[in-house]
This record gives sequence, C-alpha cells and structure tokens, in this order.
Amino acid sequence: MNKLFISYLICFAGINLHAQQEDSVFIRTIYNEALSKGHAYENLRSLCKDVGPRLSGSSQAQMAVEWSERLMKSYKFDSVYLQKVMVPHWERGTKESGWIKTNDGKLIPINLLALGGSIGTNGLLSGEIIEFSHIDLLKKAPKKEVEGKIVFLNQPMDEQQISTFKAYGGCYAIRGQGAVESAKLGAKAVIIRSLGMPIDDHPHTGSMQYEENVNRIPAAALSTADAQQLHELIESGKVTFLFEMDCRVYPDEPSFNVIAELKGKIHPNKLITFGGHLDSWDTGEGAHDDGAGVIHCLETLRILNVLNYQPKHTLRLVFFMNEENGNKGGKTYAEVAKQKGEIHIAAVESDRGGFSPRGFHCDGPSEFVKLIQSFEPLFKPYDLHDFDKGYGGVDIGPLKTYYTDIPLFGFVPDSQRYFDFHHAPSDVFENVNKRELELGAASICSFIYLLDKHL
Amino acid sequence: MNKLFISYLICFAGINLHAQQEDSVFIRTIYNEALSKGHAYENLRSLCKDVGPRLSGSSQAQMAVEWSERLMKSYKFDSVYLQKVMVPHWERGTKESGWIKTNDGKLIPINLLALGGSIGTNGLLSGEIIEFSHIDLLKKAPKKEVEGKIVFLNQPMDEQQISTFKAYGGCYAIRGQGAVESAKLGAKAVIIRSLGMPIDDHPHTGSMQYEENVNRIPAAALSTADAQQLHELIESGKVTFLFEMDCRVYPDEPSFNVIAELKGKIHPNKLITFGGHLDSWDTGEGAHDDGAGVIHCLETLRILNVLNYQPKHTLRLVFFMNEENGNKGGKTYAEVAKQKGEIHIAAVESDRGGFSPRGFHCDGPSEFVKLIQSFEPLFKPYDLHDFDKGYGGVDIGPLKTYYTDIPLFGFVPDSQRYFDFHHAPSDVFENVNKRELELGAASICSFIYLLDKHL
Repeated sequence: MNKLFISYLICFAGINLHAQQEDSVFIRTIYNEALSKGHAYENLRSLCKDVGPRLSGSSQAQMAVEWSERLMKSYKFDSVYLQKVMVPHWERGTKESGWIKTNDGKLIPINLLALGGSIGTNGLLSGEIIEFSHIDLLKKAPKKEVEGKIVFLNQPMDEQQISTFKAYGGCYAIRGQGAVESAKLGAKAVIIRSLGMPIDDHPHTGSMQYEENVNRIPAAALSTADAQQLHELIESGKVTFLFEMDCRVYPDEPSFNVIAELKGKIHPNKLITFGGHLDSWDTGEGAHDDGAGVIHCLETLRILNVLNYQPKHTLRLVFFMNEENGNKGGKTYAEVAKQKGEIHIAAVESDRGGFSPRGFHCDGPSEFVKLIQSFEPLFKPYDLHDFDKGYGGVDIGPLKTYYTDIPLFGFVPDSQRYFDFHHAPSDVFENVNKRELELGAASICSFIYLLDKHL
Repeated sequence: MNKLFISYLICFAGINLHAQQEDSVFIRTIYNEALSKGHAYENLRSLCKDVGPRLSGSSQAQMAVEWSERLMKSYKFDSVYLQKVMVPHWERGTKESGWIKTNDGKLIPINLLALGGSIGTNGLLSGEIIEFSHIDLLKKAPKKEVEGKIVFLNQPMDEQQISTFKAYGGCYAIRGQGAVESAKLGAKAVIIRSLGMPIDDHPHTGSMQYEENVNRIPAAALSTADAQQLHELIESGKVTFLFEMDCRVYPDEPSFNVIAELKGKIHPNKLITFGGHLDSWDTGEGAHDDGAGVIHCLETLRILNVLNYQPKHTLRLVFFMNEENGNKGGKTYAEVAKQKGEIHIAAVESDRGGFSPRGFHCDGPSEFVKLIQSFEPLFKPYDLHDFDKGYGGVDIGPLKTYYTDIPLFGFVPDSQRYFDFHHAPSDVFENVNKRELELGAASICSFIYLLDKHL
C-alpha cells in the first residue's frame, strides 16, 4: 500500500489552471445531463413503486437485486454482475399493536414498530412502565426498580445540534443497546421513543442488538407523538403498557451485491468504488434511505458512460446488500476484494438521503482532505461548500480493514429533513424532491470524475 | 448620507477576536432559543390556518393585519403600530375553468388560475390557439398569425440554472408582459405555462401588467402538466381552448404595514429595518411566500427581546403589505421614512421561503459586502456559506430611492424547492419544515444582531 500511497502524493500538487477550466466545462456538462435528461427521478420512482421496501432476506430484496441487474445491463456498462452475500432474515410478521392502559382502564392505541431483529412478544405482553429520559439513567438504576417491568427509553434527539446526524448519534444507544441494558436489570420488554426529529405519528424502526448470556426481550419504537403522550400519562398517574408483535428471525439467506463497471483505460486494475445500499427497512419505500443513494450512483455511471468519458481507473458501482441490519454486503465486498488481490484506491458512498447537496467528507489521510478541498472552487457554482474531514459510510467502511490508507468519501447533502423520514413509513418517493435528487447525482458524478482524473 | 457612510467605513476594520468570541457565544444562544423554545412554527401554523391566504384588499388581509398587531403586542416590544397604505383590490371571483377541445370534439378539463390583475372573460371565451416557446418569438410574429387567437406562451423554466430564482427571472416576462405583447398583435386572450419548476397539476398565479393604449385581454396560467398536454395535442392536430373567469378589479382599499420596534440604546434615531410581506396570493396559504419571511423576522425580534439584548440602533420589524401586486407597502414605507427625516442605516428582507439557510446577499456599496463576508466564519457552524453581492428584496427596495447608499440585505435559503410552491395552491403550512423554518429565523436573528453590533 505504501508505494501506492506515495504515488498519490506526487499527484497532489493541486489542479492547475488549464485542468481547472477543462474540469469546469465537463462538470457543467454533467449537471446539464442530470438536470435536463436525467434518469434519476424515474429510476427512483420505479425502485420505490415497482419494487417497494426491500429488507434483507425478503423476496422484495431479491426483486430489487433482479431489478438492479436488469437496469444496469440496459445501460450497456462494460460489465454487470452479482456478488453473493449471506444475509440475516428477520420478518415483522402480521401482528404489531400496542396500547396504553390508563389508571381508569381506558385503552389508548399507539403507533409502534418492532425494532429490526427483535423477538416477538409471544402473545399479548403487558406490564408496568418505568421511564428513563436517558440510557445512562437506566444503566444506573437499581435492579429492583426495573425488574419485571417494561422499560420506556424516552430520550429525544437533541434539536440544538445543527447536523441532525450528530443528534442521531447521541440517541443511537437507546435503539442499539436498549434491550440488552434493560434485560440486564430484569425488564420484560423495552419500548423506545423513535429516533425521529419531528413530533409526529410515524414510528421509526432500525436495528437493535442482543448479547450472548443476556436475556432476549422484545423491543419496539413508539412514534414521537405517542412517546410524548405516554410520558404525560405517566406524569399524571400509573399506566400499564400492552403490546403484541409476532416478528421473528429466520435462518440466513443468500443474497447479492449488484455491481457494474466502466473499465479504466490507463489503470484498469486500480479501482474506485462508489455506491449506496440497495436494502431498506420494511416500512415505507426506502426512498431516501437509501434509494436515493443507489440511484445517485447509478446515475453517476450512466452519465459518465453517456458522455463517453474514458476513465483512467476502473469505476465500480456497487449496490450493497444488507447495510441496515448486518452490513454483510460491505463486509463481503471488502473480503472478496482482498482475497482477489484487487487494488482499491478510493471509495465513495451516498447514504444520507436525496437532499440538496452540501459537499463531501473524507475519512482518510489528510492529503486526501486537501485533495477534495482543491475541488471546492469547481463546486462553488453548484452551491457545494462543505469539503472536510469526516465520515465515509457504513458499506465502504470495511475496506479500511484491508486497505489501511484508502480514502473513504461520504456525500453530504443537507441533513435537516433526513430524520423526518429515516426508517419510517414516511420514507416514500413522494418525499424526495426531483431537483434535489438530480443535483445529488450530478455532484457525485462530478466528484467521481475529479477523483478519477486527479488521483 | 455621505457623512453617515464615512462613519460606517471607520467601523469596517473587521471584527476582532474578542468580539468574535462574544458574538459566537451569543449566536449559539440565539440558535438554541430558536430550535428549543422557538415560536416560529406555531406562529406560521396560526397565520396559515387561522388566517389563511391574504391577498391585498381582501378581508383576510385585514384579518392578517389584526392578527399580526395582536401577536406583536403580546411580545411586549417597545412599540407596535400600523402604517396606512392604499392597496389595489383584485378578486378572483367564483368562476375559473378551462378546457382543451380536440379536433374530434373531446373536451379535456385543465387546471388554470387567472393571473393577478387580469380582467375576466365575460362568459365563455373560446378560440384557436397559437403556441410560442419563448416570448421573443411572440414579439417577432406577424400580426396576421396571432390576430383573433388565444396566445399560448409555453416557455419552461430553465432547469439547468442552479439558482431557481435565475430560472424564474428568465421566464418572468411571459407572466408580466404576456398580455400586453399578445394584445399588441390582436390576440383575444393569453394563457401561459405556469412559472413552476416541477411538472405537476398546480397552476401558479402571480401579477401581470396591462399598458395604457393596449387592449386589455384575459390572462391565465395553466399547470405545467396541462401546458405539456396542450403542447402535445397542438403537435398532433388543431385544438381550440375554452375558458371562463370572472375575476375583476375593484377600487383601491386602505390597508396597513404592521410595525414593531425595539428602541436603540445608543443611537435610537438610527434604524435597521427588517421584514417580509404579510400579503400573499389568494391560493394556498402563502406559507413560504411570504409567511415564512414575516415569521422569520417576528421570531428575530422576539428572540432578541427574550434574550434581553440591548440594541445599539433601533430595530424595526415591518410586515409589509402588498408586495405581490403593487408593492404599495414598500413604497409607502420608504416615502414616509423620507418625509419624517428618519435615518436608515440598513434593511434586511426575507422573501425566498422557509428553506435551509445558505447565506445573505448584499445590494449596496462593496464595503458592506466585505462586512457580511467578515460574518461568514461565525455562520460556518450553522452551514451558511453564501455571503456575496446580490439582491436585497422587493419590499425594502424603495428605500434606495431616498437613501442612496443604504445597504439592502437579502436572506438566501436553499432555492431548490421554492418554485414547487410559489404562488400555487400547494404553498401551504404542511410544505414548510419546522427545523428549516427555525434555522432561517435563527440565521436572520444572528445577522440582525451582527449588523446592529458592527455597523
């Protein structure tokens, strides 16, 4: 890797003026294609409406694989193929209901979703509620207070964070660790306030974990509005909670990453990977998460192909499977790459929704941060301004295990509306704006072009 | 004015480090208030739902004036008062329908809205259609080809423009001048493709002009989807168009700008004006245009007041009346200011919707552009990046007539979704995102604070 890394450094003198003018013209051509003759919006419509939600292991996920392969083949890329991945298979089942029972016996139905991976309740489960406003307070609670009860983790996302992803990160543990921490203290179930920013009726699902030697208990997310309601009822008197879920885990299933390539003309053995994840949660349509991301990246390869761009390096588009609950697609991709002795020089991911572009972040050596900062003037006419050190993405993350110095780049759209829809029934095509989606695709396409040219 | 201007220049050495730290802390406090204890979203809900659309001269506009005055008074500002403005009064009436009649006699109903200020059709008006893809082609057309026909101006907004306001500017003439140019060539009516970015069923209204000594003809906007449909039918054979509208102009009515102030502690006679327009079109709820703008500015004064900020200059909030079809509020405001001998040192407007903030533009001497560029580092944590020369706003524009060197500042949110809703039935509260609205209010509040402190 070191030799490769040194060769990068040589290229890092920055982009000279002539090259900048050439780049500027080509980027304008990319944006024109995306905005006037783009396929992104209609492709996303088809993914959302013809295929729909596509949780790993489901038949819809298989349909999504076939849909993707067929579409990639229609674009006449140099190659299109599937990469086998074993994925978990969890199903929500058909029963999913919950009620608050007030002191005077009144039943109030509430909006909930089982967390992904949760066991079912094995019939109607009811119990006294104990509420915590932060997971750290649960961890400190005496066992005798929690034992036999339903833990309610009512920790809201911090609205003062400007990046909603930071607010999400601050709450993530209630979903990921809530069941384990509750079970350690003898709770019979856990319900959490949805990791959603607005107060509304949409519960937000997402992955949760169990631990060996810790009792497995059912876990569900309430809508933020119902979490507020439950909180207020608890304040005003004792309430019990009842819910039923028949979700369950099935044996792992075979599935696939879907891959397409344009071969490099100068360094065909050096790879730039870019993609998003094809799987989604089973509620909504996975429109922003991560339909937008895979469509951004498909549109990128389509545009470069249609403009007859001759890439220096091999550009590899990957629709990863199973980001949501296992990341088996990302892990398998990196393992296979290493096994085959492939040379990976960079990877780019789009998994933050189809919103108005803001920039790109770099997880990698500082030279690569400088490289993308040298791109910034070229993106100024398109309102991108955020080129900085930061996070790459879940799917491309495992590449770092085997390619230590590889730079990973994450596409950064505006984050303000993402957690209105994330993992919720409202993550549907209608909530994606055509222009914002197209501008995202054009930005990523321009970024891949610049990486290919200047790496 | 020159003396005043020189005194500004003295202050322009930039913001020193200590002041920057103080500013940084205060701005964070502003954002926290807006995001955690903000009134913006609920105030906008009330304006949209309790008052609704509020076209100048309508009883709803009068209700909006009373609603605004009452709300401002509830916030205990130093003063709240009304400023009388005479405004035009046009009403859409109750009949507004249109049909395409195909060659074989089939009638296809279409979505249209009369343009604001248009005369009615005086019963059902029908005629042969002549289509132009650009207003310049209409201007060059021979009179005999146009005479007696209905002109159809099917000029789409240029989707390749990154700023949708530029695309709007490029099409504005079909709405503003379409009736005059068509009538000059003897047309009996004009219908235009809506100035909207997406292809959908919402027609977009807006102001149009007549000219003395040019025949007044009815003018309407078709939804973009219906404009496409009409275009395709024209391509495939002769079609006629039928429509009926009973809109009409009434005598001018008295109305009001609604004004609130926090008195300056050091220079009470020097004014910083900021605001948006209270009137809206009569379709939708004027949520983005310009409910968001007035609410941004009200929230600005509320936050500064609640944080007990002691302004140097008098901060004057203005809800202008009649921006949409006459700008009588803006013109009257500037005239009265001059008559009273007021000293105006800056003005700020928000009239580009309640979307995620991007920055501020300055219409004024370059020293003021430099001043706002010195603010940029303070706004970086909040993702604002666009501080440049540009446009101020329609309402504050007339101040330049009397205060030659006054800097006018326009708030710049992301523009991508604005022309989905602008002047259309879809400009409703539900299409405004809470966080985006709050971030806009916090940005404007911080900007007013910085102007007050560093001017």
